[in-house]
Amino acid sequence: MAPLIRTIDTETTKQVYHAAATSTTAQEITHISGQPGTNANGSVPSDYESQIQLALLNLRKIMLVAGCSVPDILAIRVYIVDYSAERRLHTRHIQKFLGGHRPAMTLVPVPKLAGKDWLFEIEAVVAKKCSAPAQVPRPLSAPIEEVDVVVVGAGLAGLTTATDVIKAGLSCVVLEARNRVGGRTWTTTLKDGGNTDLGAAWINDTNQSRMFALAQRFGLELIEQNTSGKCVLQTEDGSIEHFPYGELPPFEESIKTNVAFIRDQSEADCQNVNCAYPRDVNLDSMTFAAYLKAQGATPDAVRTASVWTRAMVGHEPEDISALFFLNYCKSGGGLLQMRSDRKGGGQHLRIRQGTSAFAEGLAKSLPPSTVRLSTAVSTIHQTSPNEVLVHTTNGAALKARKVISAIPPPVLKKIDIQPPLPLAKQLLVDSYRYGFYQKVMVVFKSPFWVKKGFCGLIQSFKGPAAVIRDTSSPADDKHILTCFMAGQYGQEWSLKERSERERILLQQIVDVYSAPEAKTELVEFVTLPWSDEEFSGYGCPSPALPPGVLDTAGHAIREPFQNLHFAGTETAEEWKGYMEGAVRSGERSAREVVDGLSRVVAKL
Amino acid sequence: MAPLIRTIDTETTKQVYHAAATSTTAQEITHISGQPGTNANGSVPSDYESQIQLALLNLRKIMLVAGCSVPDILAIRVYIVDYSAERRLHTRHIQKFLGGHRPAMTLVPVPKLAGKDWLFEIEAVVAKKCSAPAQVPRPLSAPIEEVDVVVVGAGLAGLTTATDVIKAGLSCVVLEARNRVGGRTWTTTLKDGGNTDLGAAWINDTNQSRMFALAQRFGLELIEQNTSGKCVLQTEDGSIEHFPYGELPPFEESIKTNVAFIRDQSEADCQNVNCAYPRDVNLDSMTFAAYLKAQGATPDAVRTASVWTRAMVGHEPEDISALFFLNYCKSGGGLLQMRSDRKGGGQHLRIRQGTSAFAEGLAKSLPPSTVRLSTAVSTIHQTSPNEVLVHTTNGAALKARKVISAIPPPVLKKIDIQPPLPLAKQLLVDSYRYGFYQKVMVVFKSPFWVKKGFCGLIQSFKGPAAVIRDTSSPADDKHILTCFMAGQYGQEWSLKERSERERILLQQIVDVYSAPEAKTELVEFVTLPWSDEEFSGYGCPSPALPPGVLDTAGHAIREPFQNLHFAGTETAEEWKGYMEGAVRSGERSAREVVDGLSRVVAKL
Repeated sequence: MAPLIRTIDTETTKQVYHAAATSTTAQEITHISGQPGTNANGSVPSDYESQIQLALLNLRKIMLVAGCSVPDILAIRVYIVDYSAERRLHTRHIQKFLGGHRPAMTLVPVPKLAGKDWLFEIEAVVAKKCSAPAQVPRPLSAPIEEVDVVVVGAGLAGLTTATDVIKAGLSCVVLEARNRVGGRTWTTTLKDGGNTDLGAAWINDTNQSRMFALAQRFGLELIEQNTSGKCVLQTEDGSIEHFPYGELPPFEESIKTNVAFIRDQSEADCQNVNCAYPRDVNLDSMTFAAYLKAQGATPDAVRTASVWTRAMVGHEPEDISALFFLNYCKSGGGLLQMRSDRKGGGQHLRIRQGTSAFAEGLAKSLPPSTVRLSTAVSTIHQTSPNEVLVHTTNGAALKARKVISAIPPPVLKKIDIQPPLPLAKQLLVDSYRYGFYQKVMVVFKSPFWVKKGFCGLIQSFKGPAAVIRDTSSPADDKHILTCFMAGQYGQEWSLKERSERERILLQQIVDVYSAPEAKTELVEFVTLPWSDEEFSGYGCPSPALPPGVLDTAGHAIREPFQNLHFAGTETAEEWKGYMEGAVRSGERSAREVVDGLSRVVAKL
Repeated sequence: MAPLIRTIDTETTKQVYHAAATSTTAQEITHISGQPGTNANGSVPSDYESQIQLALLNLRKIMLVAGCSVPDILAIRVYIVDYSAERRLHTRHIQKFLGGHRPAMTLVPVPKLAGKDWLFEIEAVVAKKCSAPAQVPRPLSAPIEEVDVVVVGAGLAGLTTATDVIKAGLSCVVLEARNRVGGRTWTTTLKDGGNTDLGAAWINDTNQSRMFALAQRFGLELIEQNTSGKCVLQTEDGSIEHFPYGELPPFEESIKTNVAFIRDQSEADCQNVNCAYPRDVNLDSMTFAAYLKAQGATPDAVRTASVWTRAMVGHEPEDISALFFLNYCKSGGGLLQMRSDRKGGGQHLRIRQGTSAFAEGLAKSLPPSTVRLSTAVSTIHQTSPNEVLVHTTNGAALKARKVISAIPPPVLKKIDIQPPLPLAKQLLVDSYRYGFYQKVMVVFKSPFWVKKGFCGLIQSFKGPAAVIRDTSSPADDKHILTCFMAGQYGQEWSLKERSERERILLQQIVDVYSAPEAKTELVEFVTLPWSDEEFSGYGCPSPALPPGVLDTAGHAIREPFQNLHFAGTETAEEWKGYMEGAVRSGERSAREVVDGLSRVVAKL
């Protein structure tokens, strides 16, 4: 299909995030009224960036109702109160919203707006796609395969679902776009043996009962995260502070009090969030940055909290909803437990064989030809109350009674789903956004940091790595520092040349451990840019939500749509973003499907 | 024809007067430059609301030239200087302008605008109808009836026209959409006999020579309006002041002086207005509210003047042109005379049989089958210099040498007129707007107010009735208070449930006459909501004009367009809005037509 919108640029406008002009021959033009940053109550949060986020959300909601989406936007006009050319806070949010699409744009600073306390408003002209009648692609010659359940995606969620569905006596096929199983787990082999995990790496043996059971079942060796020895804080200006694991860095006393207060307040607030159905207009109408500001966070507390959001979801605090982040933490037992490397914490145990062993083990236990690799789903059409037709890009067609989507929400956008998903679900799918998040495993000949009394854990306000952890495998004589390149610093780092990237990161390692020997001890850099991974939705570990979505559309996260069900770590009530959450979501969706189909049988 | 514009709303925007978004597939899109509130001289009035009115007028003018109208508007953008979210004065004017159409809209407060002293500007995007070639509907089988003159509308104007045209020896047919004659006169019978007028009710026997002559001719009994006894002012807070008829209410001395000054100034200024061709850029560029403000009207003077505009045309002072209102008053001999209930005044004599007797008498005097009831005109096509084709919605076709429109201007919009009316006439037709105006006749067993020494006349700043008058018919033993539900209070009252409307109005009667006995004396409420009357143009007694129209397009009020002539009380030079004006306009248009056709004969 020819692009609906042509962008027009001059020499000087090509680098700008919006076009100099746009044109269209689309037959339907939609004008959208100026949208302020009002929340579900009609009031606006006092925080400017939260208002921007909510205004963009309101624009997105109307586009959904109008049946169009971001790439259809022809032109936007943005109105800003108290605008400062030196501090263009709107740019990042609009850019993220546009996701590379470049409409024509004008920014209009104004003394005030229509509503009291409104600081931001955005209006748009959209060239609407003519809604062509849904066309079911015909498989060329292949007959339609009939099956009880089709699972889309062979990550841990999908494979768990298939296991349970088959156990219940139903027939099941798992369609996987990649040529491997495992999704966002991916183990790679190191030079001269040993393994490292490019994706998900940690489990624990207490509150992650499913993952621990799987590790036992597949006979995997567990490596406990080292927390003895000094931790390091690298401050913004690069200076180094040492502190024991589990304590706060040695900030000046009043700052320490504030950082502790912010941490404890976040912990308390996240414990109050309902994990299954998080609802709170107030918390959801502000960014996490605005939440921190409202708690009176000092700059050091904001930097500390930024390390949390970066290392956990790759986002800056101003890009995500406070409610989303607190709910995310709560799903892992709370901020402190989710961030902990100790017993019961999110980063307690690693797998010597690598976490790919889980998916591979599950896949091998399924009947032959249950899992179809390199088979991407193109359409899911619910053609009757008891029938879903699934087509794949390689021409196969399946008829199922139930379909379970076990792929990350952003990937759902690639599939033609008919009838279209409910608006709340579409809003979620459109709003879920990965931050920047890439682990770099730096392998050394010896654990020089251990010799110097460090446990390996670093947190940095300077970057480019926000956090560094020891992920060695002593049994394989592999000494590894995993550097979390996350958030804005990580993204800026990722745009440099490879040699420069490696040089800078190695220098940070030298600096934080005061270890010039790192340069000679270096063996290799191992990494995977998840932002290139189409079938993860171009990111890892978990997409996050901007303000306004969770409170109004959160119910649609795991709500089935007719015979289409939803699994995946994002849909979990516990351990969202973790392997444990993926497996639990698989169990839950399998139960839904098995119950649903039993009820159908009972009715017959 | 499918609607040109689709409105798009979310749950929360459905109640708002503009849409969240609009879309169109129209092939021709019109962009209208920002329109300020400049008058014909290019200058702006200092009054903000007058500027809004003129800006909307300028927008309307451009749309007329572009060949589109309000329902075609896709989006508007409004720019306001010194905007206050607490005082949204623009809303009522834009809402009235849109008349229920809901385009997308953004409001942009700005520090200043392009022109000096501009306070308001509006721009629009319009989805233009493709101008389809005019199609003359073919009558199915009926032959085309040939006649000298077709009169559209059997109100007093149309029936007078027909009478005079036939008297001059021409053939004539009157087409009437309703199943009755009389237009905005309509008499109804009361319980146990007697009559009351739902529409026009008063005449006089001095300067309303035509109506008095008709009353004599048809042998109608006249009832003189009672003006002896106390009048009542009900103030905004509901307190009651008594005063003799013809004097000012007992305001505090300085206020009384101001009210008298405003009354006398309005009287003097209206006497200076040319009745036939009212022209005054200055007076026409301000609302009557701005005129009052410019004269230094105190709040009580504004309230007093608001009672005038409400009771006379159903409008608030901020909704109508000062020139229009002064011209309207002048047509009745001046503000004081038009408002007077005494000899020579606008409300001096009533008709015991009811005013329907006039139209019925005229209709009966016409040759059989001159008047065709239930026959609405659909098209008026001037097909050649001497021929006008008229089609009706019930399939009849007439060929005439002259056509006289004797319907209210807003009803002209319902007829397909080819070639289209001149722009000035279209501007008038589009701009004429009824206020809210509905009489409620409350019938009592006895005239308890007379017993208490009241003449019956009330004026209220509190509402819901703005004015109350005694319209009893002692000969029929019918004791009636006619309550003028007019302007904003009247409209708000009209939106309530019927029982609540009646309860509130009865309570006002109890309050103003200090007469709790009104409740037990009550017989019935009689009323007609003229806002439901399609063939009056949804209103009564006379539509009014906002600023800017009269001075520039006033010449088109009674200017014939080729062989199409215009009668109706709005076109009268004297007693506009009254039955007298209607009859005089009929005489005048009959003269035009008879003269025109004689000249044609002379030429031949």
